[in-house]
Amino acid sequence: MGNIATVATSPNIALIKYWGKRDDLLKLPLNDSISITLDNGVLCTTTTMMVSPEMKKDVFVLNGKIREDGKISEALMLIRKRLQGQKKGFLDGEKVLLISENNFPTSGGVASSASGFAAIAEAVCSIYGIKDAKEKSIMARFGSGSASRSVYGGFVRWKNGTRADGEDSYAVQIAPKSHWPEVIDVLAIISKKEKKVSSKEGMENTARESGLLPARVEGVKVRVERMQKAVLEKDFATMAELTMRDSNNMHATMLDSWPPVFYLNESSKQAIEAVHEFNSGEIKAGYTFDAGPNAHIITLKKYEREVVGLLREVEGVGEVVCAPVGDGPKQLKPDKKIVDYYLAKN
Amino acid sequence: MGNIATVATSPNIALIKYWGKRDDLLKLPLNDSISITLDNGVLCTTTTMMVSPEMKKDVFVLNGKIREDGKISEALMLIRKRLQGQKKGFLDGEKVLLISENNFPTSGGVASSASGFAAIAEAVCSIYGIKDAKEKSIMARFGSGSASRSVYGGFVRWKNGTRADGEDSYAVQIAPKSHWPEVIDVLAIISKKEKKVSSKEGMENTARESGLLPARVEGVKVRVERMQKAVLEKDFATMAELTMRDSNNMHATMLDSWPPVFYLNESSKQAIEAVHEFNSGEIKAGYTFDAGPNAHIITLKKYEREVVGLLREVEGVGEVVCAPVGDGPKQLKPDKKIVDYYLAKN
Repeated sequence: MGNIATVATSPNIALIKYWGKRDDLLKLPLNDSISITLDNGVLCTTTTMMVSPEMKKDVFVLNGKIREDGKISEALMLIRKRLQGQKKGFLDGEKVLLISENNFPTSGGVASSASGFAAIAEAVCSIYGIKDAKEKSIMARFGSGSASRSVYGGFVRWKNGTRADGEDSYAVQIAPKSHWPEVIDVLAIISKKEKKVSSKEGMENTARESGLLPARVEGVKVRVERMQKAVLEKDFATMAELTMRDSNNMHATMLDSWPPVFYLNESSKQAIEAVHEFNSGEIKAGYTFDAGPNAHIITLKKYEREVVGLLREVEGVGEVVCAPVGDGPKQLKPDKKIVDYYLAKN
Repeated sequence: MGNIATVATSPNIALIKYWGKRDDLLKLPLNDSISITLDNGVLCTTTTMMVSPEMKKDVFVLNGKIREDGKISEALMLIRKRLQGQKKGFLDGEKVLLISENNFPTSGGVASSASGFAAIAEAVCSIYGIKDAKEKSIMARFGSGSASRSVYGGFVRWKNGTRADGEDSYAVQIAPKSHWPEVIDVLAIISKKEKKVSSKEGMENTARESGLLPARVEGVKVRVERMQKAVLEKDFATMAELTMRDSNNMHATMLDSWPPVFYLNESSKQAIEAVHEFNSGEIKAGYTFDAGPNAHIITLKKYEREVVGLLREVEGVGEVVCAPVGDGPKQLKPDKKIVDYYLAKN
């Protein structure tokens, strides 16, 4: 415990997707979701947080630039309120210096917000000696729903819960990395451009406009149980098929929004077709797409080379990154130097 | 009445779509649909039919080529059975020479089967003196569901019905062309290539696999009544918005099929975005897409020039055709010459 912490976190890729909120501020979802946390040796957000009563205001340094960030301010507001309620007094008179850096492109369909907000929750809990994983997951959720899953490694399920205050909406680990370390995500970067429609915007549009979303929510209730079973039984074919079907199902509700939201482009479609062709006979890979065109191909290590090969054939694919399932957040030695550097600058 | 008839029919464009059957052979749909029959002065199928006890087998000449055609054989089988049941004896010992020609590309998303099978029904009814429009609509439906709507001009509704024998599943005219002659369909041909997935295949896939289709069917129940009201009240903004939403909704269920079915391509998406931009402020146009990438833009004559202009800006758009709402099938002078030509060839 101290007033400073440095943590390494990573994005997760959802096999059963989160799309649509029942509470916009608290980020309470319409349905359960299941994800794989990726190895932070490959995709990593390194975050240092310092709290101090001597700073005049919160300062956020994101990828080397001092920035205002409404989403981070909102998350810190909710965290402050929560800890005051628990009489921890955290941040009551104290301000935060947050320095966060991704080793991957942001806002291009790789969920940097998941690792970023998981990092904030990790750092807060480290500084204030909070060990409860549920607390961490809820604090991460305050920033971004999917961040609630990135506080664990391995295979993770975020329960939607039913309470209006969200106290039953947090993630749990369904299996650690060691259960099935062969699982990898082969990520094809199709576009590094900033998205036209943010996932927040797209999700709220779908929840407001799509007449199909309630049917998706009902469908997920069945799919999420089958997915958990497939993960626990290491039944890859079922896991991959459910992953593909759930991604298609979510993107269908996006198309049913108003105006319609398109995240898949021609390259995404080519990747989908390539995977279906690769799977003829036996399911060896499953595609999934978040709110962007980048293809995540969930497969097993033994197929990595073939999957990379088929993605390289797809027009418009740039970098291809292979990220195995990861161990979850890591505490690093607090980086006092970087804190001193930015304190001197302010 | 005679043993020969020549008719001119045209495709229709559905504002509320037909997608999914409750009976594959009888082409009974899961939901009602509403369409505009297009002017056969622009998009036309000219069909001559002769029945004769002297021919040895049915002969189909489609766009100048003698061809086998399973769908036509199936429709004729059902029509023969129906007329035998009504003791008309039609085609009992007689064979059919059918010569049909489209002035537009087939299988590229322009529904040639609708006008083709409407023509067969028209010709049969002309030859056998059947005046009942319901009979015509049911016979057209035997070949292709959407053909049931092309036996009328103007604005047409096809009722799904509930009977297993389909006797309550036929189209009715909700308003003639004269009610609202300003309505036009500006059709942008994006691809003349044969479709990868036929609409029959795509539709059966969706009905089998999509968990979202039942929600679409429920949604259409509301939308179809609102559409009929909008047509009767000549409320263009509502008609156009419902048209766009229903097209998106149908394509969403296609994406939720397994494997997913994509009919929209990048050009289609660009056309969608261009229409949304054109509509900012006031809805002046509505896009809709059948089982193909071609954009149908429903608008009013006064906006024709602007809509054509915006479509010409879309990458990948070829021909642009403007088809007003039409009057429906036309009986022409029987074309005996073409019959003699093909009889001599056989």
